[in-house]
Amino acid sequence: MSNPIDELTSILRQFPGIGPKMAERLVYFLLRQESGWIANLTRVISELKEKVQRCSICGNFSTSSPCDICSNEARRKDIVCIVENPSALKAIEKTKEYSGRYFILGANISPLDGIGPKQLAIERLLNYIRQYQVKEIIIATSTTSAGEITTTFLFEQIKKQFPAIRITHLAYGLPMGGELEYADEVTLRRALAGRLEINKLKEEEKNI
Amino acid sequence: MSNPIDELTSILRQFPGIGPKMAERLVYFLLRQESGWIANLTRVISELKEKVQRCSICGNFSTSSPCDICSNEARRKDIVCIVENPSALKAIEKTKEYSGRYFILGANISPLDGIGPKQLAIERLLNYIRQYQVKEIIIATSTTSAGEITTTFLFEQIKKQFPAIRITHLAYGLPMGGELEYADEVTLRRALAGRLEINKLKEEEKNI
Repeated sequence: MSNPIDELTSILRQFPGIGPKMAERLVYFLLRQESGWIANLTRVISELKEKVQRCSICGNFSTSSPCDICSNEARRKDIVCIVENPSALKAIEKTKEYSGRYFILGANISPLDGIGPKQLAIERLLNYIRQYQVKEIIIATSTTSAGEITTTFLFEQIKKQFPAIRITHLAYGLPMGGELEYADEVTLRRALAGRLEINKLKEEEKNI
Repeated sequence: MSNPIDELTSILRQFPGIGPKMAERLVYFLLRQESGWIANLTRVISELKEKVQRCSICGNFSTSSPCDICSNEARRKDIVCIVENPSALKAIEKTKEYSGRYFILGANISPLDGIGPKQLAIERLLNYIRQYQVKEIIIATSTTSAGEITTTFLFEQIKKQFPAIRITHLAYGLPMGGELEYADEVTLRRALAGRLEINKLKEEEKNI
């Protein structure tokens, strides 16, 4: 493969969500940029792995370890939200509603993809719980089947060693902005089962 | 912006078709790659503009100028297919049906985007026609309104200077694999107007 256009196209196709047409478009976009722009791009890519590491406590990507969240004394150590990946952490941080810490699981259990309980950072999680005397674990996995299997597994593992810990999950229910007639059955069934008195709901919102 | 993750995310968002979520996914993908993989990526990006240039004849991106197509003596010089960009050229080459040469227009006329006739490589095109005594020009613009305006403009400019040249356009009609009930009105109207006797169609296919 001596042609640099084909070579870069085939590298870009290895990125998630980039198909052959898209890869081609990106290469032609690069060919239209100034040399200075290209130099800046390659510099930032090269520096990314040098400057960014994983936080030794939560496992999130960060320029420091411990990361900004784990080293922030204003955030509660004894409440931990377990998320699958850094994007999920970012999504929860954006709500500005959560004052606890996080734990990045790294993956969901998914036998079809060859990911078993051993691929999860479970030992590090149990150490964290012990060290910081965690009172509540919020499991915030995706509501996919892999996420649900992972939730069950985590619940069992944590309960076995720390029976007193409160283990919660993000509420299941209707997404905001959706019309009821388009909600799927499973969501509706869970939204019904989890129904809350409106007074109580408003109270809960104040106490996050 | 001191955080390399945010910095790279914001650069990647400048690429066509890459939104904020996608840019984030690409950065996390990069963070998971080995250093050698990253080094190879940045090398190929850096070399891209060094090794790739525009062919002085057709305007396509190539590692040589003239490009492989323009320097291939087996391809007819006197029939030229005008395309908007290198992707369109590649799409036609894939059919393996065309033995003439190409001319990359660079853009379509689009007043809303500030692209007028002057932004098109029209002088270089007229020079090519003169130099190689072109007999047929196939206009292969997109069937968008910008493409149609460009076709009309090219037709007038070429006819004015070279009244004897045959100027054709790729056939309008039904796309393959589509169900008739989903075809839009304009396509159907053009497919009707351009209907061909089946005997003749088979003959035409032999003579490309």
